[in-house]
Amino acid sequence: MKISIITIGDELLIGQVVDSNSAKIATMLGNLGLSVHRKWCVGDSREEIEYALAQAEESADLILITGGLGPTKDDITKKIMAEYFNNDLVFSDQHLLHLEKMLKPRGIEVTDAHKTQCYVPDHAELLDNQLGTALGLKMEVKGKTWISMPGVPYEMEYIMEHSVLPYLMTINQDKHWYAYTINSIGMGETEIASIIEPLLEDMPSYISIAYLPSISMVRVRLTGNHSDPVFLKSQVDAYAKIAEDSLGSKVLNRNNSTIEAEIAHLLLTQNKTIGTAESCTGGNIASKITSIPGSSKYFIGSIVAYSYEVKTHLLNVSKERLLEFGAVSEETVISMMVGACESLHADFTIAVSGIAGPDGGTPEKPVGTVWIAVGNALRYKTKKLKLSRDRHRNIEAASILALILAREWLLD
Amino acid sequence: MKISIITIGDELLIGQVVDSNSAKIATMLGNLGLSVHRKWCVGDSREEIEYALAQAEESADLILITGGLGPTKDDITKKIMAEYFNNDLVFSDQHLLHLEKMLKPRGIEVTDAHKTQCYVPDHAELLDNQLGTALGLKMEVKGKTWISMPGVPYEMEYIMEHSVLPYLMTINQDKHWYAYTINSIGMGETEIASIIEPLLEDMPSYISIAYLPSISMVRVRLTGNHSDPVFLKSQVDAYAKIAEDSLGSKVLNRNNSTIEAEIAHLLLTQNKTIGTAESCTGGNIASKITSIPGSSKYFIGSIVAYSYEVKTHLLNVSKERLLEFGAVSEETVISMMVGACESLHADFTIAVSGIAGPDGGTPEKPVGTVWIAVGNALRYKTKKLKLSRDRHRNIEAASILALILAREWLLD
Repeated sequence: MKISIITIGDELLIGQVVDSNSAKIATMLGNLGLSVHRKWCVGDSREEIEYALAQAEESADLILITGGLGPTKDDITKKIMAEYFNNDLVFSDQHLLHLEKMLKPRGIEVTDAHKTQCYVPDHAELLDNQLGTALGLKMEVKGKTWISMPGVPYEMEYIMEHSVLPYLMTINQDKHWYAYTINSIGMGETEIASIIEPLLEDMPSYISIAYLPSISMVRVRLTGNHSDPVFLKSQVDAYAKIAEDSLGSKVLNRNNSTIEAEIAHLLLTQNKTIGTAESCTGGNIASKITSIPGSSKYFIGSIVAYSYEVKTHLLNVSKERLLEFGAVSEETVISMMVGACESLHADFTIAVSGIAGPDGGTPEKPVGTVWIAVGNALRYKTKKLKLSRDRHRNIEAASILALILAREWLLD
Repeated sequence: MKISIITIGDELLIGQVVDSNSAKIATMLGNLGLSVHRKWCVGDSREEIEYALAQAEESADLILITGGLGPTKDDITKKIMAEYFNNDLVFSDQHLLHLEKMLKPRGIEVTDAHKTQCYVPDHAELLDNQLGTALGLKMEVKGKTWISMPGVPYEMEYIMEHSVLPYLMTINQDKHWYAYTINSIGMGETEIASIIEPLLEDMPSYISIAYLPSISMVRVRLTGNHSDPVFLKSQVDAYAKIAEDSLGSKVLNRNNSTIEAEIAHLLLTQNKTIGTAESCTGGNIASKITSIPGSSKYFIGSIVAYSYEVKTHLLNVSKERLLEFGAVSEETVISMMVGACESLHADFTIAVSGIAGPDGGTPEKPVGTVWIAVGNALRYKTKKLKLSRDRHRNIEAASILALILAREWLLD
């Protein structure tokens, strides 16, 4: 079964909205062993939507459409779909009941503007949406299945989870998909390939390899398709193990977990508590640590110290030290780390101080200079970074590299 | 000139990577008054890339391609492009020099694996990339321009900024694009449309309207295309003003700025300093405030208090109060706010305490219960939220709604 996605919306084409929907849909399908074949993104116009429908009709068996189902002027998907498949738009009492159920508790009257949403193609099945006013649509036309969902991410997810995935699970699949991802640090894409690929020369053609570089990390992904899911998993896992073993300590963590999740695992295993003292990262490291459910078991808290006063007052960095070495120095960041251990009563802390930019640099300490310290008064590690001029990227890179240093400290 | 984007990569189709590239490209083009017509996303296979090239050739004048330019096995774009346009792949000394320049300072030897990158279509112009080993490619074939860039976001951005945009600026454009976005809070998409649209009935057809709902906010965007850029801007601005005026205090801020940027503007204007005391948001509010360049002028710092001890010790919340009312209560969040004002020496603070989930709820205080306080001991506002069961969405919504409450406090 070939599955395609059509995303509709001018906002996607002008770049105002990043299309996270199709990645989410693909991930949800991936959990059922299904993959997406092609994806089109077109604007909110008749001609463009018709183009995408025609292209999808030619090459796909199941077409998932997002966007253009709302009640407002720019939402025309339903009308164009009805015309394309020679269906009439009919008023649906089921849709009206849904609207009333959604709006009345919020004290909103159902108006004529809302009611335009109740016109649906007469052959369409309606798909429940408990998070918004627009229901999803499912149509079977000439052996192909068309599913249309709102573009609002959590509404799309609701319909995928409650209608689309259950429907797909009822269809027998003889093709299975499985992927294994290795996260590596400290090597470039080419270097990794030159180590791994000679070892994988006999890898069967139903398994493919891809390299995905991001800030400070390269993800190596082995993906396979096969009719026998148990055999497939054993084969992909075996080749992934060869690759992983060859990369040794450069392997950060396994099967697509994140550095936050690895830190969580290490902290729970070692029964340690952590805190942070952040200057240039501004709370971003704490925010990453607390994104993990259950992080209250090991995360005590943070002191985000932007002003000198907070550094001296709450982190106990001495004024003399700040004046002598500056806020961005190894000496200060060690003081921040020790001070945060004391203030927060944490077993160890991550401390970061740097110049995120775009302004604030000096010839000796240009924008992108960052100092990290991880540990406590008894044992610690420090690291100096020379990052870029881009504020957003500097904050993100410093945060990830600080978490990587914390992993090293925990593993030592 | 019709511009299309082709993004290539299995990682995009399986949802492992969200395609932020095409939104970035579209935003950069938008600054020149250009818009994207269509977008295709296909996997790393010959058949799929050829399909996308053929489709783009049919309908576009300029085609921007990302992905598949690296040195590894899955990177085949260049080879398929050469074949598609009957070009030979030839070894480029210019590319080899670039490789040596990039790798030698990092102490990496240029290997045969690297050198495969130096084979390029013989009619291609190479586009500089100071952030990676793969250069971009530009080919002119039968009156159409094809530009191929690496999929790594910051490398793509470098090539866009240094080669593609300067090239586009040399081409005379008689079509201009302009958009105005209104950010509104406290109303749904339908309600907004029913207020605005009757007032915009005479809006010319070259201006269109779109509604983009996100967490706690609806963005209303007016987009226009016209040959006269000055006239276009005056027309779009005039209709946007009508819409804005009709929404009154529901307009959060203007022309696509964010709530963080609006808070920054208000703090600088009122010469006030801010800090945060965060429990369930875990530093996410501080992180948003410090994402703005120059935030050190008004942001003092934060205390992220996950443990009871940090709440009593650093925020001076009394143990009795915590025991009587619980950590998630109006009483506690007010104490946190006052305590943070004292600890941080800030003019006012945002304090948040809640149950982000997925666990930790009780019948009286289910997951998603969040209390916010904004202000200082002399004047403050509080708000109770009932959010969802989803941890990530709860943290994000609580952070944004806390910033919105801070805006209201500043405007009072």
